[in-house]
Amino acid sequence: MNQARWEKMKMRMREVQLEQLLVTDTPSIYYLTGRWIESGERLLVLYVPLEGTPKLLINELFPQKPLEGVELVWLKDTSDALGILCQELLPGKTLGIDKNWPSGFLLGLMERWGSTQVMNSSLLLDGLRAVKEPEEVELMREVSRINDDAMGKLMEVLEENLTEKDVEERLAKIYANLGADGFSFTPIIAFGKNGADPHHTNGLRLLNPGDAVILDIGCRKNHYCSDMTRTVFFGHASEEDREVYETVRAANEAAIARIKPGVTFAEVDAAARDLIAAKGYGPFFTHRTGHSIGIEVHEPGDVSSANTNPLVPGMIFSVEPGIYLEGKLGVRIEDLVVVTATGAEVLNQVSKELRIL
Amino acid sequence: MNQARWEKMKMRMREVQLEQLLVTDTPSIYYLTGRWIESGERLLVLYVPLEGTPKLLINELFPQKPLEGVELVWLKDTSDALGILCQELLPGKTLGIDKNWPSGFLLGLMERWGSTQVMNSSLLLDGLRAVKEPEEVELMREVSRINDDAMGKLMEVLEENLTEKDVEERLAKIYANLGADGFSFTPIIAFGKNGADPHHTNGLRLLNPGDAVILDIGCRKNHYCSDMTRTVFFGHASEEDREVYETVRAANEAAIARIKPGVTFAEVDAAARDLIAAKGYGPFFTHRTGHSIGIEVHEPGDVSSANTNPLVPGMIFSVEPGIYLEGKLGVRIEDLVVVTATGAEVLNQVSKELRIL
Repeated sequence: MNQARWEKMKMRMREVQLEQLLVTDTPSIYYLTGRWIESGERLLVLYVPLEGTPKLLINELFPQKPLEGVELVWLKDTSDALGILCQELLPGKTLGIDKNWPSGFLLGLMERWGSTQVMNSSLLLDGLRAVKEPEEVELMREVSRINDDAMGKLMEVLEENLTEKDVEERLAKIYANLGADGFSFTPIIAFGKNGADPHHTNGLRLLNPGDAVILDIGCRKNHYCSDMTRTVFFGHASEEDREVYETVRAANEAAIARIKPGVTFAEVDAAARDLIAAKGYGPFFTHRTGHSIGIEVHEPGDVSSANTNPLVPGMIFSVEPGIYLEGKLGVRIEDLVVVTATGAEVLNQVSKELRIL
Repeated sequence: MNQARWEKMKMRMREVQLEQLLVTDTPSIYYLTGRWIESGERLLVLYVPLEGTPKLLINELFPQKPLEGVELVWLKDTSDALGILCQELLPGKTLGIDKNWPSGFLLGLMERWGSTQVMNSSLLLDGLRAVKEPEEVELMREVSRINDDAMGKLMEVLEENLTEKDVEERLAKIYANLGADGFSFTPIIAFGKNGADPHHTNGLRLLNPGDAVILDIGCRKNHYCSDMTRTVFFGHASEEDREVYETVRAANEAAIARIKPGVTFAEVDAAARDLIAAKGYGPFFTHRTGHSIGIEVHEPGDVSSANTNPLVPGMIFSVEPGIYLEGKLGVRIEDLVVVTATGAEVLNQVSKELRIL
């Protein structure tokens, strides 16, 4: 166990008077133990009692070296895994449950163990994970530097008659050459009017002069994720293209300028949204302004009007306003930022000047 | 909605007297509606009442054309998605829940709606999906043919001093050239003693003469998955290698020979396991004999001693016994099989003769 994180976790458990919980997410188990374990459909649970030794219930198909401060409980494919888990629990005490544990396990556990005694305890660990430690910020800087390099190289390879899929393939090679551990998400490469769908699936459309090109890309390195978007124009940009672009850019910069401790996520969202609305594009900015990021590419902590939590130094999230004009184009500009003691450190250095390739 | 599947689903709901359920899995929603939608952390639910029109609750970031027989309920990033869902539910009636719905959603729903009225209803749809329709069997044949072709080509590219990661990259290109839609799982390429870990992560080990090479590979095509393993020897094979290989091969063939309607999954498992045990390798076959497969690479329906359900024509699963000798090698041989009216149709045609490359 990472002793410092474990102690902070216990403090939070005491605050909410929770004496036991299950950590079941691969990223959260990694955060606490330093072990990255993907168990697929097989049960994997770190049982964390406030007093006593945490236990990792794990299938023997995922062999582990001893783990300091954690007892390993080995399961087989034929084990009654939930029965074994039930034996570990403190009877009569509320049990905290990770938000991403598959419901089938939870319903099976509740049937045997008492459904009124479970609660969603993700906030405890998610709250810890939201505020990155200095070493984590450094890992986020490193993976974002790789992403910056990759974006520069990707812009160089764009040429007429490439498909979106081709560009995705080239990006995979660029990341591999730069030493990344792979994509942090399937990149979104959208040409021309395809960009009007914020979650476009890369296809066989050919790159043509006059296309706006959305490049929404990210890689993993040492289990941390990068994520950045740039929109460039291929060949030329119309007056409308330029106006849309400069509006999104101003929104991105306004939101970043708003960031400092104590300001809420909702206020950062409003800074971008109000600017876009003032230019008359309000209905065409259809998603949240950003999302938190770290070990996972999307972590709890939306930059949206629904999130009125205040910013705290060490939080890292994306700022990615966009304007989507059906049948024409989309423009999105995204940076990752770290909240500092006085404002924001922007992790991406790729220029946001309008660029015609 | 796929009308025939929808009718079968309703029949099963009536049998267990369940009047409403939530389908939340991307593959299950695809199975019923023909739409493949990945919504990440955003709520996506197909609400299915026994009487009346099913409703798909979906974020407007995933635009859809109209869907016959389904009402679309659009959510925004700022919507109270669980609140909107609660309004749709029939009060006082038990609600079925998909096994993979993240617990955070379920616990939030239970808090608002009444925790005693939920149950795991996955078995209904999983039971339908387990028995493949003729068109599905044909899709599984097609994706397995591609996998056979890929295995042949992959064996041809093996050469000294390639790393496991190199082989994985070449496989990705082979699949792309064959028209596959990508990996169905991260392939396991294990050289020499790395093969002794059934879930080995591909690394930088170089291929050397005398290595056993496990190639556990699969691709997707039209939303169906293939999965096959062959173990070959590079340069030469020792007497022990040959004995281990022939034992695993015999176990694979014994299990396949045991397949016919009415026989249980556990009996298929026993056919492979008993043969390996009789040769003295029992403790070194550490996992289930296989898993069901279709739209997902691992579907409910283990081939293990814990699964005493009988085989039914149309079921498709893997038969993949293995022997793992720490510090030496691993051997695994895997085929996909369809249960037929009288026995088994094997979907993979790549020879299982011991092969030295």
